[in-house]
Amino acid sequence: MKFNLALIQMKVHSEKEECMKIAENHISEAVKQGANVVLLPEMFCCPYQASLFPSYAEEEGGYVYEELRALAIKYNIYICGGTMPEKDAQGKIYNTSYVFNPQGEQIAKHRKVHLFDVNVKGGQYFMESDTLTAGDSFTVFDTEYGKMGLCICYDMRFPELARLMNMAGAEIILTPAAFNMTTGPLHWELLFRQRGVDNQVFTAGCSPARDLEGPYTSWGNSIIASPWGKIVGQLDEKEGILVQEIDLEEVKNVREQLPLLKHMRKDLYHLEYTGE
Amino acid sequence: MKFNLALIQMKVHSEKEECMKIAENHISEAVKQGANVVLLPEMFCCPYQASLFPSYAEEEGGYVYEELRALAIKYNIYICGGTMPEKDAQGKIYNTSYVFNPQGEQIAKHRKVHLFDVNVKGGQYFMESDTLTAGDSFTVFDTEYGKMGLCICYDMRFPELARLMNMAGAEIILTPAAFNMTTGPLHWELLFRQRGVDNQVFTAGCSPARDLEGPYTSWGNSIIASPWGKIVGQLDEKEGILVQEIDLEEVKNVREQLPLLKHMRKDLYHLEYTGE
Repeated sequence: MKFNLALIQMKVHSEKEECMKIAENHISEAVKQGANVVLLPEMFCCPYQASLFPSYAEEEGGYVYEELRALAIKYNIYICGGTMPEKDAQGKIYNTSYVFNPQGEQIAKHRKVHLFDVNVKGGQYFMESDTLTAGDSFTVFDTEYGKMGLCICYDMRFPELARLMNMAGAEIILTPAAFNMTTGPLHWELLFRQRGVDNQVFTAGCSPARDLEGPYTSWGNSIIASPWGKIVGQLDEKEGILVQEIDLEEVKNVREQLPLLKHMRKDLYHLEYTGE
Repeated sequence: MKFNLALIQMKVHSEKEECMKIAENHISEAVKQGANVVLLPEMFCCPYQASLFPSYAEEEGGYVYEELRALAIKYNIYICGGTMPEKDAQGKIYNTSYVFNPQGEQIAKHRKVHLFDVNVKGGQYFMESDTLTAGDSFTVFDTEYGKMGLCICYDMRFPELARLMNMAGAEIILTPAAFNMTTGPLHWELLFRQRGVDNQVFTAGCSPARDLEGPYTSWGNSIIASPWGKIVGQLDEKEGILVQEIDLEEVKNVREQLPLLKHMRKDLYHLEYTGE
């Protein structure tokens, strides 16, 4: 089934209200270009700094949540709302993505399962777990266009999670993300292409625009890859949107031509989901 | 631990004796260049045609097996002997790789687990299962340089198999292979790079040279990729050898800098080997 997917590679402002304005301006343009499904970047309404997540965090149903919901209704689109810091009733903070349908109903919620903790002696230090708690499940959801999977940035590096989404029926994996200037050039394209090939799904990674004056310099290069591992659309590092037609029939075609999923040796190995 | 790995991208002749001569000429040159471990291509001594596998097949300990064993001793090297059609006592045929140490002892044996069966309506037809039986285990082995994994061509497309080798301690995955002119340009580099990144191991794929007059046109481009997903050595499509120093210390460094394997959520998913 065909639909138009929009990636919103926006700059992140330090004020939430300003972020929502920036997001809506881009979404409005994407809808003019025919977007049916809109994907926002990781932490699109909060600077990507572990120390700031608690003060930006909102409970489910808070300001950013309601704004996103309203945009889905106003523009009659599916919104995968990038991510935001979410606070639960116990005060724990998560890196969370909500998905709304065009009726403004929340149809999915994913909490980042793999926290990005890097502490190289004399090198990079970034510890999401300083302030965040990890989620504990994988996420797929139904739309009128097909079944979609959802994970967040570092989650995508773990082939098990993509495989679980694939086995649950996902035909495209949406990934709000914010790779950095080390891992971006090395791994960003490679990762989205190969997860597509392995699972015979489309993949889409949406990053914030590169902002050399902000606290975190993201790689940008928001990308859509096909089940053949071809890049079907990609932005550069600058602020911008990408609206790309996706035909999920291609998933069926690829799986027929190269029946990888049929050829899995399920008698020899078994990937089990052992969460709740 | 450092060693020199040689990939022997040879042309496959229709006579086994001729193939062994070609292989030895290349191995002799590789050893002059310092090779400690030699990797031969998939079906290096048999045209890659399912209908020919039965007549070329040998039981373990047959002519090609003994020739490889003798070369390991003569040149004081580890030989991962590409693959050959192997016949068992019941007459079943496998696509099999043997590994010999410098003392001529067989230290590993892998039978291709995933058979390449493609039958596109009006398109490509290649059915290994017309004549072959699949193996039923994954393979790792110890050397004085470190632990190595071994799989064959299409096996590499299944992330589960690479992960099982990784979990069993492999620091490099050796893969005799023969990608074709469709899948080669699309997926060859991508696959070896991403399996390296996901498992934080070196990967090496050794292909026959491209032979436009032979029954099967292989992509060539024998490759070695690092645990960072960088290509550290690659041939073009022509007959040739690649001798490349591999420092398995890099595996430790990468795993320390980007601790993917520590960050796997073993509480949420579990890849189980359910074979014998």
